[in-house]
Amino acid sequence: VVAAQLAGHGQLVVHVGAATLRDCLRLVEHAVKHGAHALGAIPPYYYHYEEEALFQYFRAIIEASPVPVYVYDNPGTTGNPISPELVNRLAAIGLHGVKDSSFDISKTYALMRKITKQGIDVVIGSESLLLPAYVMGAQACIAGLANVLPELLQSLNAAARGTDMQRARELQTRVLKMRDILHYGPSIPTALAMLKLRGFDAGWPRRPMLPLPEETFSKVKHAMEETRSLWSL
Amino acid sequence: VVAAQLAGHGQLVVHVGAATLRDCLRLVEHAVKHGAHALGAIPPYYYHYEEEALFQYFRAIIEASPVPVYVYDNPGTTGNPISPELVNRLAAIGLHGVKDSSFDISKTYALMRKITKQGIDVVIGSESLLLPAYVMGAQACIAGLANVLPELLQSLNAAARGTDMQRARELQTRVLKMRDILHYGPSIPTALAMLKLRGFDAGWPRRPMLPLPEETFSKVKHAMEETRSLWSL
Amino acid sequence: VVAAQLAGHGQLVVHVGAATLRDCLRLVEHAVKHGAHALGAIPPYYYHYEEEALFQYFRAIIEASPVPVYVYDNPGTTGNPISPELVNRLAAIGLHGVKDSSFDISKTYALMRKITKQGIDVVIGSESLLLPAYVMGAQACIAGLANVLPELLQSLNAAARGTDMQRARELQTRVLKMRDILHYGPSIPTALAMLKLRGFDAGWPRRPMLPLPEETFSKVKHAMEETRSLWSL
Amino acid sequence: VVAAQLAGHGQLVVHVGAATLRDCLRLVEHAVKHGAHALGAIPPYYYHYEEEALFQYFRAIIEASPVPVYVYDNPGTTGNPISPELVNRLAAIGLHGVKDSSFDISKTYALMRKITKQGIDVVIGSESLLLPAYVMGAQACIAGLANVLPELLQSLNAAARGTDMQRARELQTRVLKMRDILHYGPSIPTALAMLKLRGFDAGWPRRPMLPLPEETFSKVKHAMEETRSLWSL
Repeated sequence: VVAAQLAGHGQLVVHVGAATLRDCLRLVEHAVKHGAHALGAIPPYYYHYEEEALFQYFRAIIEASPVPVYVYDNPGTTGNPISPELVNRLAAIGLHGVKDSSFDISKTYALMRKITKQGIDVVIGSESLLLPAYVMGAQACIAGLANVLPELLQSLNAAARGTDMQRARELQTRVLKMRDILHYGPSIPTALAMLKLRGFDAGWPRRPMLPLPEETFSKVKHAMEETRSLWSL
Repeated sequence: VVAAQLAGHGQLVVHVGAATLRDCLRLVEHAVKHGAHALGAIPPYYYHYEEEALFQYFRAIIEASPVPVYVYDNPGTTGNPISPELVNRLAAIGLHGVKDSSFDISKTYALMRKITKQGIDVVIGSESLLLPAYVMGAQACIAGLANVLPELLQSLNAAARGTDMQRARELQTRVLKMRDILHYGPSIPTALAMLKLRGFDAGWPRRPMLPLPEETFSKVKHAMEETRSLWSL
Repeated sequence: VVAAQLAGHGQLVVHVGAATLRDCLRLVEHAVKHGAHALGAIPPYYYHYEEEALFQYFRAIIEASPVPVYVYDNPGTTGNPISPELVNRLAAIGLHGVKDSSFDISKTYALMRKITKQGIDVVIGSESLLLPAYVMGAQACIAGLANVLPELLQSLNAAARGTDMQRARELQTRVLKMRDILHYGPSIPTALAMLKLRGFDAGWPRRPMLPLPEETFSKVKHAMEETRSLWSL
Repeated sequence: VVAAQLAGHGQLVVHVGAATLRDCLRLVEHAVKHGAHALGAIPPYYYHYEEEALFQYFRAIIEASPVPVYVYDNPGTTGNPISPELVNRLAAIGLHGVKDSSFDISKTYALMRKITKQGIDVVIGSESLLLPAYVMGAQACIAGLANVLPELLQSLNAAARGTDMQRARELQTRVLKMRDILHYGPSIPTALAMLKLRGFDAGWPRRPMLPLPEETFSKVKHAMEETRSLWSL
């Protein structure tokens, strides 16, 4: 369950996550040995955990890691949401920031205003909320769609940091429209289909995920062609 | 179940809602007779309804009303969310806009980009999402907190329409901090408590709502004093 | 929002419910004046209420009513679930029982074992859970499907009180199969369609509910014919 | 993520589950090599999957396993519920049954009446629903509490198969009361605490689960003593 993504300026952030602490610490060791510049640590999944269990889990990861650790809050997949209080406790012992994939901008804003330690990053974990996160002070986004349309996401990233809100809005709208296509099927295989349609064949995802069915693939292809002016920069 | 609010420029928008169409049409008649400039029509509540039933419900209201009708989408209270498709169907027969209290900015953005008819307003129905709604093109907000802190909300409203994003962000943060106080208790009695603390006694809400317990009232009082620099403009 | 149902032994239980206490007390008065033998009081809906507000709401109803009052717990429609603790508080001041339409048998069982006062009835509020409620001690059921198929429900009611579990299981299975038909469309219009197909024309429900569309009506008709041996006793 | 449990008649049923098919197939091989008599296969977790992906996942497991395979439906932990339709598709290619931990007896009943192939077992996956599952025809239960109180669970199991419903009800009530204690803390560490209090020290669970805090342990100890007449058979 390791996903590696190359961040904008050549930093390698490796995501680590497992159902048990032991397995996760092995992934930490592996990631660091292979040159990770930072880690995005997913809460343990399958079972539900109380805050103290989550605290001790992340503390062990922070203590084991020589590189910066970010908590990756994704309650929709893990079933274990991360509270601002937990972030504050972890910040006090070395946490660098949070990748927020709660998909609830009100929670993101609450996190931002409740973090007490200076310098803790809140990275928005979905391109769908880039602009509203940036207008309230977020400085970075880890965007699934950036795997498919990096140019478009870079443009939005730049515009959202600038002063031309009209331009930022227009680019965010484009991103949302392209994201609608990403949801014609399950998002990971659909992203890979979109990549193929741009000429990059990265294969299909590991089972149990399936290749995109031919019918959906055709629908995606048609939509990519129809929207070329939106994403071809 | 009628709430009347005086909008920024002296327009009276009356909210109408009931469990049955007949009762709601009586409220429409009553509101219009008493000078409503526009209506915010709540979906029928208690039972869950399919889209066609909601369409026919709102169609009857639009046909009965001589003044502009807005749909008030508040799925948390009604259990009947309003889809963009339904808004488009209603726009074709005279709907003027939507007050969106879905409390999910992604749904608000989806509504904005899926509305096909020109000139349909999307009014954000919570001060907590004013800035993210405005940066994507919303032009108005109906804010519960404006009943308590109208000056602060007007400042945010003005800033969010302007170009000084730093200022807008700062005001939105103030609003969110004041809104945290609004949730020390149930929001309606707490709002009335905050009003009292500003010197305006509007009583307590109708039962089954209760007056704010003394302990919570004290907590709100203390918080209002602590935050005076945030809201006293 | 008043529904009157004639119970098995000729008792008239009237359901009362409203968004405000004042409106509900009017319904109580009206029901009692017209001969209700007992009341099923629905929690206030639309807004969410804390337990104390619900307690005071029901206390006012119990105090106003000369006939026995039951709380009708239906969190799916009201958004305000009733806790066993609240039931115990209300039992101490005169509540007679609970009609449980939580549709979660684990909650029903929890209610049963947490009620401390002798003689408080737990009436199961759905025919889908009649047998599992009765095997744990419930003595009565208020069943929507009994409006359509009273003979079948009476048979199940009798069997579930008896010792022939094989017979009870077989009848509960029939009830569940007929209930599957009840959900071909929204349950109230579908129930009325099923009644029409049995020769009783009770009209269609009040708007915003719609008559059953012709296509669904045909599907229901076909299913009623196919299953005649299950329900025609 | 392998849990082994010894079933009533000395059969070893091993649960297998992973986030990817490859990892799960390794667990299948391992379990079979070590003498598993049957497998309980958990749906893949973390990501959400469409029915076809789940079908192909379980098909690969069924094809790889020389021993009977049961699907273990636990949507609360996996986020991927199993529909009756999927069970029917899998039954046609060799599935032996379902362990149902949906914690929703209505879904269990729907599964029971929608299974079309003779001989497919529905095993209820929680002691809290043993009796309602058995009265509708289930024949077996995999009960977490049986790890702590096997005698009580065996008594309930026997009674629920018999004709003395009064006795079955009384035992199910005892089980539910003991299960209330199981939820004083997270259920796995609390179960281990209860075991210790019965004189069996099976240690504490693997991290991120934590040992039960001393205060909760004391509360459990007190409750076990208070309820001795319920569970000490």
